[in-house]
Amino acid sequence: MNNIEWLDKPVAKIEQVDIDSASDRQNSLTKPSGSLGMLEEVAIRLSAMNQTDTPNLEKVNIVVFAADHGIAEENVSVFPQAVTAEMVKNFSAGGAAISVMAKELSAELEVVNVGTVTGLDKMFGVLDQRVAAGTHSFYKQAAMSEDQLVLAFNAGYDAVQRAKKSSTNLFIAGDMGIANTSSATAIACAIIGCTAKVIAGPGTGLSKEGVSHKVDIIQQSLNKHNLDPQQPLTILQTVGGFEIAAMTAAYIACAQNKIPALVDGFIASAAALVAIKLNPQVKDWLFFAHASAEPGHKKIMQAINAKPLIDLNLRLGEASGAAAVVPLMRMACALHNNMATFAQADVSNVN
Amino acid sequence: MNNIEWLDKPVAKIEQVDIDSASDRQNSLTKPSGSLGMLEEVAIRLSAMNQTDTPNLEKVNIVVFAADHGIAEENVSVFPQAVTAEMVKNFSAGGAAISVMAKELSAELEVVNVGTVTGLDKMFGVLDQRVAAGTHSFYKQAAMSEDQLVLAFNAGYDAVQRAKKSSTNLFIAGDMGIANTSSATAIACAIIGCTAKVIAGPGTGLSKEGVSHKVDIIQQSLNKHNLDPQQPLTILQTVGGFEIAAMTAAYIACAQNKIPALVDGFIASAAALVAIKLNPQVKDWLFFAHASAEPGHKKIMQAINAKPLIDLNLRLGEASGAAAVVPLMRMACALHNNMATFAQADVSNVN
Repeated sequence: MNNIEWLDKPVAKIEQVDIDSASDRQNSLTKPSGSLGMLEEVAIRLSAMNQTDTPNLEKVNIVVFAADHGIAEENVSVFPQAVTAEMVKNFSAGGAAISVMAKELSAELEVVNVGTVTGLDKMFGVLDQRVAAGTHSFYKQAAMSEDQLVLAFNAGYDAVQRAKKSSTNLFIAGDMGIANTSSATAIACAIIGCTAKVIAGPGTGLSKEGVSHKVDIIQQSLNKHNLDPQQPLTILQTVGGFEIAAMTAAYIACAQNKIPALVDGFIASAAALVAIKLNPQVKDWLFFAHASAEPGHKKIMQAINAKPLIDLNLRLGEASGAAAVVPLMRMACALHNNMATFAQADVSNVN
Repeated sequence: MNNIEWLDKPVAKIEQVDIDSASDRQNSLTKPSGSLGMLEEVAIRLSAMNQTDTPNLEKVNIVVFAADHGIAEENVSVFPQAVTAEMVKNFSAGGAAISVMAKELSAELEVVNVGTVTGLDKMFGVLDQRVAAGTHSFYKQAAMSEDQLVLAFNAGYDAVQRAKKSSTNLFIAGDMGIANTSSATAIACAIIGCTAKVIAGPGTGLSKEGVSHKVDIIQQSLNKHNLDPQQPLTILQTVGGFEIAAMTAAYIACAQNKIPALVDGFIASAAALVAIKLNPQVKDWLFFAHASAEPGHKKIMQAINAKPLIDLNLRLGEASGAAAVVPLMRMACALHNNMATFAQADVSNVN
């Protein structure tokens, strides 16, 4: 495989001394020790990641990777494949959930077309890095070639470089791709080593019968390809999607470039699972935003040993669950930076 | 009991037609139906409460009620009683968690002193409605007189009237009072009809032995007073606190005045439990912000049959958990108001 030597570059290390320093700060603030729960943990991690006493998330970069999936032809989604490209237009026009949320957050929103079935005209906020006109159906053959995997990886790598140039404080990757829960499910099954039934769910809204058919398709595909859990790149190439590969690469690039990344829901977590399989240290740079309503998400979180910050029963993708969490993380920073200490406020301390 | 006739005024009714109308709007937006989970529910409820197509939470009023508790003399808290008044000063000076959060939210923050042990000089942002120098220890006698309960109720009522005058979109009540988890626990036990052991927890940080002692004190008090679950006013008077009574009154006043209220954690939920016991329709006007780390909170949520929006393992009080949720609720409004419909965006719809 060419041009992915960067994947093996070491991940930045988070120093215990920086964690301790931020923890000391938290324990000096006017509140019972630990009483701000996960908001304390978020602030401490961000402090240590950025080696700063005053973490902030002013600059947030959201990149939605869009691509089509050959597996859609096996009737595994309720929505037609045309919706992927239609939603790219909707992102560009500002009408999608993530468009609205990015605006509310004053975050930068970028859409990268890594493989819609039909090409799209140039439009505002959309980059064209189309690898191909969708993947192949992994029910019939490998989803993509090695070269295509490299191109998809590059799209993720490039996005992180752009975010870095804009001095990002937080990178968020989102997904758009009809049928991509089938791909994410197959990836998760192959890496975790479980059956499709354990992970597969309704996605955008399959009926019970629909889920059952989806399970059959994915399980037969897994049986056919007989993937090795220790070969995450082969897994991505065989049952993955261009947007999922781009997200995998983005998480690794974030960890190499000291950029905290906030992982969205089911699709994003499957990409994170691959990234962590490729390099376990990547996990140090990831926050897990929310527990997706897609039932298999829980299994992926268990496999990663991660606890999402919130659970709002979301299952939209597009980075929407991550976007919802940004204000909480910003609040964590504000509390860390601006609360008075016991000494400053002259409050009796028993911490 | 005098001057609380207003408690019996009917609660505003939320119309099904308004819920249906907001639900139709949600189902027309460019996303799989239901995929924004609890964010959809929040927007639908706010739409119906305000009978508007475009709900918003621009104006948020946070009122922290502070009071001392006689039960503190039984060594049920790790912090000394002086901290209640010290924290009032900290709220006023802007150094407390809720001060920082209110600023981040551009929310109005008001502190009402309903009963610190020592009187406090006039200070910025703090109203003096001190009922008494703390309650009596309910381990020894009733916490307060009937007249004092009325005064505490009035403080809650007044706060909602002020918020209403400022055209509030959301009312948040917070608590400050050393030892108030003991009072909230006793209230919850009396109304739910369970033992202290089922509800009591570490509060601001008791050891295992400390919790055990707290359970004994509360259980002996419950045994002594032999409270009737059907007499919530007597329960409040006997084992309650001034700030908890004020919060109870505030929730009822909100429901009567068509003001959505966001309930914070353990103390606030005990107050909401009483309010709902007094008038079950009050619940229609309440959002439950977060699952507190205080273990008994879960029992209270079960008794109310309520599901908190998030769980960040918070246990600070001061309305801090509610404040953390405000951006999520605002996001819910923005999505409801600003997303494109399938028709507008020309996206294929199978909803």
